[in-house]
This record gives sequence, C-alpha cells and structure tokens, in this order.
Amino acid sequence: MEMGTTFIVNPGSTSRKYALYRDGACIVVLYFESLPNDSFSMSVIRNGVKEKEYSLTKEEYTHSIAHALSYLQDNRDIATVDEIVLAGVRVVCPGTFFVEHKEIDSQYIDTLKEKQDVAPLHIPELLSEIENLQKILPHTLLYGISDSAFHNTIPKHIRTISVPKEDAELYDLRRFGYHGVSFSSIVHNYKKQYGNIPGRSIVCHIGGGVSIAALKDGKSIATSMGYSPVSGLMMGSRGGDITPGVVAALTSLKQLKGKELYEYLYKKSGFQGVAGIHDLRVLLERKASADEDAELAVDMFIHQIRSWIGSHAVLLGGVDVLILTATASVRNPYLRKLILSDLSILGIEFDEQKNDALIGAQGYIHTQQSDVKVLVMKTDEMGEIDRQCRKLSKKN
Amino acid sequence: MEMGTTFIVNPGSTSRKYALYRDGACIVVLYFESLPNDSFSMSVIRNGVKEKEYSLTKEEYTHSIAHALSYLQDNRDIATVDEIVLAGVRVVCPGTFFVEHKEIDSQYIDTLKEKQDVAPLHIPELLSEIENLQKILPHTLLYGISDSAFHNTIPKHIRTISVPKEDAELYDLRRFGYHGVSFSSIVHNYKKQYGNIPGRSIVCHIGGGVSIAALKDGKSIATSMGYSPVSGLMMGSRGGDITPGVVAALTSLKQLKGKELYEYLYKKSGFQGVAGIHDLRVLLERKASADEDAELAVDMFIHQIRSWIGSHAVLLGGVDVLILTATASVRNPYLRKLILSDLSILGIEFDEQKNDALIGAQGYIHTQQSDVKVLVMKTDEMGEIDRQCRKLSKKN
Repeated sequence: MEMGTTFIVNPGSTSRKYALYRDGACIVVLYFESLPNDSFSMSVIRNGVKEKEYSLTKEEYTHSIAHALSYLQDNRDIATVDEIVLAGVRVVCPGTFFVEHKEIDSQYIDTLKEKQDVAPLHIPELLSEIENLQKILPHTLLYGISDSAFHNTIPKHIRTISVPKEDAELYDLRRFGYHGVSFSSIVHNYKKQYGNIPGRSIVCHIGGGVSIAALKDGKSIATSMGYSPVSGLMMGSRGGDITPGVVAALTSLKQLKGKELYEYLYKKSGFQGVAGIHDLRVLLERKASADEDAELAVDMFIHQIRSWIGSHAVLLGGVDVLILTATASVRNPYLRKLILSDLSILGIEFDEQKNDALIGAQGYIHTQQSDVKVLVMKTDEMGEIDRQCRKLSKKN
Repeated sequence: MEMGTTFIVNPGSTSRKYALYRDGACIVVLYFESLPNDSFSMSVIRNGVKEKEYSLTKEEYTHSIAHALSYLQDNRDIATVDEIVLAGVRVVCPGTFFVEHKEIDSQYIDTLKEKQDVAPLHIPELLSEIENLQKILPHTLLYGISDSAFHNTIPKHIRTISVPKEDAELYDLRRFGYHGVSFSSIVHNYKKQYGNIPGRSIVCHIGGGVSIAALKDGKSIATSMGYSPVSGLMMGSRGGDITPGVVAALTSLKQLKGKELYEYLYKKSGFQGVAGIHDLRVLLERKASADEDAELAVDMFIHQIRSWIGSHAVLLGGVDVLILTATASVRNPYLRKLILSDLSILGIEFDEQKNDALIGAQGYIHTQQSDVKVLVMKTDEMGEIDRQCRKLSKKN
C-alpha cells in the first residue's frame, strides 16, 4: 500500500474533524467545534489524548482548513503543505455515483451539486470543504471516501425501495446506507486483532449517528439507514423511520417542504424532539434521575436498537458475534446493559461485571455460556479514510 | 351480549363489503366490486360460499347500500329495513379520537372531516358510506368500529413518533396501527377454539393489506403499521416504510404534495410499483415463472415479513405461537413456505407436508420438534364488527 502524508477531512454539521497521517500512522487529529453562543474551538489530539484546546474566532472557524494547515506547519508536523500528497474527505450523499471511493474531479463536484435538493443541509458544507482543500492544496490528490461504499454488497431485494420502478431509476432512489467507513474499519481491525470475522455478525455503530448493520462474512447485507442518513433509528436530532404517513402529514398539516422539511427531520426530531436533549450521554443521566421525557426517549431508542438486532438476526439465520462500536457504545456500560438485557432468544448473554468494568476500552463482555460473542470495539473512521486513500492512490 | 339484526359495512378502496348478521350468526355477505373497464359486480356469499354474482350498473354500485338492502328485502333475508337495529362500519383513520369503538354522531363525522388532509383517499369514501347509512337506516344505531382500537395497548415508547413532542401532541401524530378488527377476531376465535392464547404470539395478517403484530397475553404491544395504513410492509399498491428521506425526496424531486402524494404512496407503490402487479397471488405465480420484477417484489416482501417477525420475537422475548391469517396466508402454502423457511433461530420449524396439505383451511403446520407452534387461521372481520357492535349496544 502507498505510503506518504495524508490529510483527512471528516465534515460534520456542528464540527469538523481533520487529521494528519504519515505512512499509515496518525500524527495528530484537529477537532474544530462550533459551540452555542457563537464561540468556536480547536482541540489538538495526539495518541488519542487531548493535548491542547484553543479558542477560535468565527473567521478562523470559517477557514478551518487553512487554520489547521498553518497550525501543522507552526507545530512542525509538516514542513510545507506540498508534503501532503493525498487528501481524503468522507462523503455522505445519496446517489449511486457516490457508492464508491473515487477521485474528486469536476464531475464529482457537479454531481454533488445536483444532489443539493435531496441533502440541502450537508452538501453545501461538503462543497465548501472541498473548495477550500482545492484552493489550499492545489497539487494534492483529492479522494471522496464514500460512507455508503461498504453497503454496496446489500442484495437487491433489501436495497430496493418499493416506489414505482421507473422513478427508482430516474431519481436514483434506493437504500444506500451510511457509516460505511466505520463498519469497514471495524471489519479491518477485527481481522487484524482477532483473525477472521465470523460468518454472521451484527455491528451497532452508536455515536452521534446510529446505524446497525448485518454482515455476512464481513460484508454488509443490510443496514438500518436507508436512502439518506436521516432514516433508521432515531438519533440526537434526527427522527429516523418516523413512517411515511407522518412525513406526508407534516407536508399537509405543517406545510413543511424543501429545506425546512429537511431541517425538521434532521435537526428538530429524535432525542431533541422527544426530550429536548440531543446528547445521548445527558439523556441517559436524565433517565437515571427519572426525567419522564428522557426516559421515554431512551426506551424508544433501546426498543429500536433491539428491533434491528432481531430482524438482522433472522436475516443472518443466527448471530456469531455482536459488535458494539462508536463513542456511546464504548463509553457507556449502562447503555450496553439496556441493549443486551433479555436477548437469550438470540443466544446472547452478557456478563454484568465484564460490562461494568469496560469503560472507554475494547473487549469481550459475553458470558462463557453465551452462544453469541459480544465485543466492544473502537471504531477508527479517520484511519479507515487514510487507508482507503492510500489503497486508491496505489491503484491509480 | 345483545342479540338482534346487524348490518355490517366494511369499506375498501375498490370494493365494498356488507353483511347481515342475526343474533351473532352471519346470514349473508354482499361483496361489491369496481372492476377495471368501468364494470361493477355484486357477489352473494352464504356460509362462506359464493352463491351468485350479479353485474351492476355504475348507478347501482354508487348506491350500493340501497342496492344491498333492497336485495336483502327481495330475498326475504329481512322483512323491512326497520328490522336492522344496529349497523357497524369499520373505520380506518389516524387519530386518538378513533382508537375506540363508538357511536357515530355529528361529532364523529366532524372529526372525520377534519382528518381529510391526512387521509384524503379514504375519508371521502367512508363519509359517503356513513351518509348513505344514515339516510337509508335513519332509526338504526350506528357504530364506528375502530381498526386501531386493538392497538391501544401498545406501550408509549413503542407508539411514540420521534418528532418534536409539541407537534406530536398538536397534530396527534403517533403509531395507531391498523387491522385491529382482524387481530381482535383472531384472539377471540383462538380462545374459543384452542383455549387461552399463549403469552407470546405473533400474528401475520396477510391479505389485501398486511400487518404483523406482537401480542403479549393476547394484547397488542407492537405492530408493523404506524401512523397511517400506508406504513409498515409493502403491499399491493402501498409502499410501506419507504424511509422518510425518500418521501422528502419525492416532494422535492417530483414536486409531489397533497392528494397526489397520498395517491403515489397508496396506489402506485408496493408490488404495483416494483413489478407492475398489485395482486399477491399473481405476483407469486409470476415469480414461479421467473419474472424478474415479480421475483424481486416477492423477495422484498418476504424479507420484510421475516424482519418484522424477528423484531417482534426480540420484543416478546421469544415466541409461543406464530399465527398466519387473512386470505393470502390461508390460501397459499408457497407463500407460507417462503415466510417460514430457516427460522430455526427463533425456534420455528414448519412441517412441509402439513403446510402443503392445508389450503383454504385452518390448522397447525409446525413439526413436533418445533418450539413455536405455527397456526394458520381464518380471520373474521365481519363477525368481529358484529360482535363489537352488540357489545357496545349492550353497554349503552
């Protein structure tokens, strides 16, 4: 695989994450956050530990890529920007064009622009990041790393959406699935650390976004997210599968349409809508202190996670390993307990002590009697983007 | 329970079903159908057997209640319409007001009218049937038998939709669930024929509409349909849960809104959309003759059914009995085979010979070793409407 220095871009809605990789190793992660009351910050993370945090002006946040790169030079992580031979951006966008990792050229950008109608909240941010990259790193090879590519193995009868066939083709409507970069990193790291991945695995990615995927021999055959990343389970402020009748009702009763409709589904629903709290950690604390709305939101969420585990288990014809990943899974034993309790119907039995002891770390938490292994694993989206970039550059 | 003569009305989108019950026994069913190329028919069914079929003019079909009642008089099933002391209409309408069976008075009709925006295809038909009943049977006690009432036991965290709490209240958005009349008839008849219903049962209603419900001690705790009867599984021409992002995309890409959007979701999607065939029986035949689109639609449908069985099984913590009901379940061993194969993860093992032998009849089809009983049962929506009407009239 190609070696060299890679700059990674992982855009979010209220944050932007950058990283510098050299020869496959993470040198530094820079985490830009837009906080409430118009304040902004940049955290510097090395070896998984926050080293420093800086306050930023709005101007610095707006030009975060320029700011990040000058920080890297000031700090002698790189001598000049010319050192960066590759850059990779995680791309979240519905569209068959985007189900593979590829070089970002003018066709790529035009296709992203065409998709603005169906992803009005994410594409502008993504386009601006790409434009900045091209301006600041004009000689760097730039790749779009697809968050759906991993799900391209989902069979046709599971990815097809039951609208008129000609519209599904014309408007490119199908279940694309997301969090593919995370799932791909899990499969890669599982193989590296534990050997071959078992035939039937279910992976729950529970972070800011939430997806649950069924993997057959390490390949995705179904996932909870459908056409766009608003679907599947409820999330911080995303409603998940609120049923088509409700979306239709919102267009007639509340006259929602266009960007406003997307903002409603992405920013005002989910935990935020039900309990007024978008942060799952806070939500779980509030549930513990008997806040009724928080309790309701958590109960809804856990029910939805368990429902997806059940349906994936049937699809796979049983489960060999259940993997819990992303921040909330890794940090929160209470959340894991809620998910894993009373799943003996699927042969899942978790060990309370092992579970309670594991906080922020990786490890198995099933009992010796459990038919299904239960593994808590860290995901590594940034490392996976770097790996995919180097793989692509070697091919080209 | 109150005895007497009841007239039952079960409105559909391309058919209307009426029945006359006396002291709890079905005297006759009249089935009015609007066929392609503007032709109309009325079938007379006694003791479950079609006795006669008449061609109708459009005028006769339009005034089907009047036509039905004059047929009943001509045929001496009733002497005069005054004999009919009760009439019951199956009501399918999202709304907390409609989650109980109740007398249809002016408030009921006003509330139905208010709901026309969120059910523009069904309410006008229902209102016209009610108006005709009131005109022709002015002295008859008229009940709305709710198709959602049975699901009123679904716990809050399963029925709540993750939109903003204040909107859920203001616009009355929640999972209402449908086919409750059918599920209720199944529970009633199971108890009558087999004794107490086991603690954990899953009932698959697979007819023109499709719903899969999880019952705890005979009470609904979850069902596949959500806010409106377009949701859950794909059906003849209904899309089911096509994910909220697709509904949003249809509003922006295809500019769908209002009645047109509902028509799209209800009339153009599902089997019809994917394979150009709305009839499940025809679809299964075409699959057998290797029609690719038909095969795809069937595979999608079976996957969705099995997914719901899996998620309900987790919710119930296991399954004691799986009940397959409604026309397609009862008539089609091939469909049942597709649903039931490789479900050993849930302890379900069906007997191929028993399954093949059972066509249009009721009976168990599991093997002796199966942990889960599998029962094929006929549903009796008309009988259930009659029963609920008589129960109500005794209370009042």
